[in-house]
Amino acid sequence: MDHAAPPQPPVRFGTHPDVYVHWRLEVEAPVARLVMDVQEERPLRPGYTLKTNSYDLGVDIELADAVGRLRFEHPEVRALVITSGKDRIFCSGANIYMLGTSTHAFKVNFCKFTNETRLAIEDASAHSGLKSLAAVNGACAGGGYELALACDEILLVDDSSSAVSLPEVSLLAVLPGTGGLTRVTDKRKVRRDLADVFSSLGEGVKGKRAVQWRLVDETVPLSRFRERVSERAAALAAAAPVRSGSGVALAPLEGSYKESGVEHRHVTLAVDAPSRVAVLTVRGPAADEPQTAQAMRERGSDLWALRAFRELDDVLLDLRFNRPEIGVVVLKTQGSAARVMAADQVLFDQRNDWFANEVLHHMKRVLKRLDLTARSFLAVIEEGSCFAGSLLELALAADRSYMVSKNGGPEIAFSSLNLGPLPMANGLSRLATRFLGEPARAGVPQGEAFGAEEALTAGLVTFAPDDIDWEDEVRLAIEERASLSPDALTGMEANLRFAGPETMETKVFGRLSAWQNWIFQRPNAVGETGALTLYGKPERARFNWTRT
Amino acid sequence: MDHAAPPQPPVRFGTHPDVYVHWRLEVEAPVARLVMDVQEERPLRPGYTLKTNSYDLGVDIELADAVGRLRFEHPEVRALVITSGKDRIFCSGANIYMLGTSTHAFKVNFCKFTNETRLAIEDASAHSGLKSLAAVNGACAGGGYELALACDEILLVDDSSSAVSLPEVSLLAVLPGTGGLTRVTDKRKVRRDLADVFSSLGEGVKGKRAVQWRLVDETVPLSRFRERVSERAAALAAAAPVRSGSGVALAPLEGSYKESGVEHRHVTLAVDAPSRVAVLTVRGPAADEPQTAQAMRERGSDLWALRAFRELDDVLLDLRFNRPEIGVVVLKTQGSAARVMAADQVLFDQRNDWFANEVLHHMKRVLKRLDLTARSFLAVIEEGSCFAGSLLELALAADRSYMVSKNGGPEIAFSSLNLGPLPMANGLSRLATRFLGEPARAGVPQGEAFGAEEALTAGLVTFAPDDIDWEDEVRLAIEERASLSPDALTGMEANLRFAGPETMETKVFGRLSAWQNWIFQRPNAVGETGALTLYGKPERARFNWTRT
Repeated sequence: MDHAAPPQPPVRFGTHPDVYVHWRLEVEAPVARLVMDVQEERPLRPGYTLKTNSYDLGVDIELADAVGRLRFEHPEVRALVITSGKDRIFCSGANIYMLGTSTHAFKVNFCKFTNETRLAIEDASAHSGLKSLAAVNGACAGGGYELALACDEILLVDDSSSAVSLPEVSLLAVLPGTGGLTRVTDKRKVRRDLADVFSSLGEGVKGKRAVQWRLVDETVPLSRFRERVSERAAALAAAAPVRSGSGVALAPLEGSYKESGVEHRHVTLAVDAPSRVAVLTVRGPAADEPQTAQAMRERGSDLWALRAFRELDDVLLDLRFNRPEIGVVVLKTQGSAARVMAADQVLFDQRNDWFANEVLHHMKRVLKRLDLTARSFLAVIEEGSCFAGSLLELALAADRSYMVSKNGGPEIAFSSLNLGPLPMANGLSRLATRFLGEPARAGVPQGEAFGAEEALTAGLVTFAPDDIDWEDEVRLAIEERASLSPDALTGMEANLRFAGPETMETKVFGRLSAWQNWIFQRPNAVGETGALTLYGKPERARFNWTRT
Repeated sequence: MDHAAPPQPPVRFGTHPDVYVHWRLEVEAPVARLVMDVQEERPLRPGYTLKTNSYDLGVDIELADAVGRLRFEHPEVRALVITSGKDRIFCSGANIYMLGTSTHAFKVNFCKFTNETRLAIEDASAHSGLKSLAAVNGACAGGGYELALACDEILLVDDSSSAVSLPEVSLLAVLPGTGGLTRVTDKRKVRRDLADVFSSLGEGVKGKRAVQWRLVDETVPLSRFRERVSERAAALAAAAPVRSGSGVALAPLEGSYKESGVEHRHVTLAVDAPSRVAVLTVRGPAADEPQTAQAMRERGSDLWALRAFRELDDVLLDLRFNRPEIGVVVLKTQGSAARVMAADQVLFDQRNDWFANEVLHHMKRVLKRLDLTARSFLAVIEEGSCFAGSLLELALAADRSYMVSKNGGPEIAFSSLNLGPLPMANGLSRLATRFLGEPARAGVPQGEAFGAEEALTAGLVTFAPDDIDWEDEVRLAIEERASLSPDALTGMEANLRFAGPETMETKVFGRLSAWQNWIFQRPNAVGETGALTLYGKPERARFNWTRT
């Protein structure tokens, strides 16, 4: 499957409302409207057209940008209406021809990114008071309904034809892979037998039944639709917390992208393609960071914690989409641990300020993106590193960590940010997840520095080789890891990284996506006579009927 | 992959300690020993030999039988030692050649069954006080260690060579698929980075390090091993609750198996191969059931609740392994609802009696097997049916239910067994899972009968067509379901059936198994140059390095 793919131009994730192709962002505080108006002839890659407000990765990159930007640039906005600029069509979901012509790896990463975007909509509601409303003004199918499901409220136009539907199973022999099945049962709590009928019924459900089945919150006649959406948006905004002061513009990152890697101000990715290994280095603040909420806002998107984690996010996405053969990522840090700790402390102290709050939640989301990136991460803790506080999370997120043991060697240290504000998808801090079996150990003292031996004894690093063995041991670990099957590692990491409790979020990635990945390989979907392959063609899919 | 498989003789699940090939069951109350001594030349199907105490489905069928039988036939046993009869080898896991030559569907169902057996060992510990001890007297690899992980305690011989290991990732490019990764992190709570090292390290971990990493509870020199195992087994037995009275022998079921279906005393499976549909009918008690604990024990394995659910279990396994193309199973019942309700009530009232307790937990496990069977279940509630109490669970477990609405039509009713004693893998009753969104509805009145319209209004059935539409509507629903992609349905059902909380048990089937199923299809494992395919051959596996 994968080998037939032609080389593709790299995907870039930076964008801005001024240059959106497929969305209009209209801000009329306290309400913002995101209007989906997909341009058929502007797909991310040539080979398909984006009919009927269907989306591809390019469309979703703009949506993700808009949701993130609203939180930083528009504190005055407290309700977000997501709707369509097309007549009688809200959104028909992910573009099928795009899926049908994509490699397995691209499909999987596409779904992962769109899932993260939908979770970001929910995160904005939960943590920024940016309540969201899907104004479903027409047909709403598959990924279109999954987008609506990510909103706090769903209003469906009652025009005798507009329905919400999940036609994936019946039409394409795949699953609604962007959280649909999970959110239907676990968020909207649709009864499982009704969810079964709904999810196997191509034409979907409309009108009163859609409300009775809990699939939407309200249906509204077309004549009253616009007015009712405004009413509900105003009500959501009125109930949301007020965030005061002006917004903080997110400046473009302007990284340098080459085959050999990526260079950002605080983050560098150095790729060694033959060995399939990359070194990802995050640098701490170059000087002291602002001390007050006001000063932080003035620093704006140049604030170290915001800029460095935006750059890290960008590099993780670059790895996922543009460097599929890099199997091992070595995580390094450079700089002053004291400055990282000080920056963390200000963020923590000011966490009731909306901007500091946004910076913290952004860091959290980027670290979750790391947890979910299907590459092996090895943290390498050397002299000159600053694995402290928020940057220590990189080592805690890594599959393993190596810390050199020598006189005057590196230290690691904990800030308040390690103890809760940056939870994983399972709802626990990385420390709490690490010490599921020894909960007392998760209560590490803030500020105290650990040398290699102390860190090893406290269970905070995996290995602490001494100076003499250091280089060999790290090199061997990397080589060994890079030699293993990429698929087996992906499955192993997807299990071991998410010890402990499960949440709707982990269910989406652990249960739903794992099944979807399986189905995305089955001949019944992607084989010569599979339903995804034959979509839009006159021929009918032919199935192998064996049940597994 | 699947089409190349030659037709296989059907698998049968009935066995008895007297005819075990691969295990010895030695009972010396209060301790029982299950000694694994796999006969190389007695595989379930020709084509591979079972070297080094590796196992296939035949080996696991005996293990499952032994664990189930101990609970009923040996109430005097309170500790189970699982060990090996081979020198220096405990168990080397699932047989690789068997896996390499099996269809994908067989691999998946093999893993599912072995997972259920390991969960049954844990269930016996939790609910029968049958504590288990893995006496690991030699090398313990892969599925061998996963078997040990299912026990309450693991003792490893300390002979400088015996290690516990999960070599699947490094050696075979697949996952430990029988709960290994999940139990390492979630049951034994091994630190995730140590779990990562352990699970990617072919040679495993032994001695003191195995204890430090929480992989085993204790290591014991060979000279003291037998003695120490006895000590620990005695201690486990001493702490377990006493179950008094003599055991209840489980008589063979002696069903009739044909291409057209299976005939048991209380359960019938009628197969219509061309339409890929089977009708599974469970009949209620033919006469009044015993009223006291004593009378129940005297009735023994002829007790309706025990016999009917053993037969149901047998038919579900027959469907999974011998009838892979049956996509839709219509669930029906026949008989007197009053008698089912009365039988339920006695079980519930006597639940502190060990035998009644065992019957209840057996019913629970069989219903869980149904939840996990990858076929579409449609409950059809007609005149003459007895969907009441424990048999109503069939309708609640079904993906949908249809109840005919007519004068004097069928009724459904709830007994105490619907309100908690028969939980799903997610820890909730099927009623509570059904009404996640409307918890008040889960408190249905016991004993009250619901006609079709009342059941529909109360949300207890999916559809209640009237007499005139009944046959057409049910026929169409079945035909439509049978026409959909088997894989998409498997994935959809695996998501919708497990709404709500996740447990270690649901993680094993939802997260780990879904990833394993994915990997079991990847060319890096099962392709021409895949690691599973080339195992034991001189050629080295060659991987496609794309990460997904």
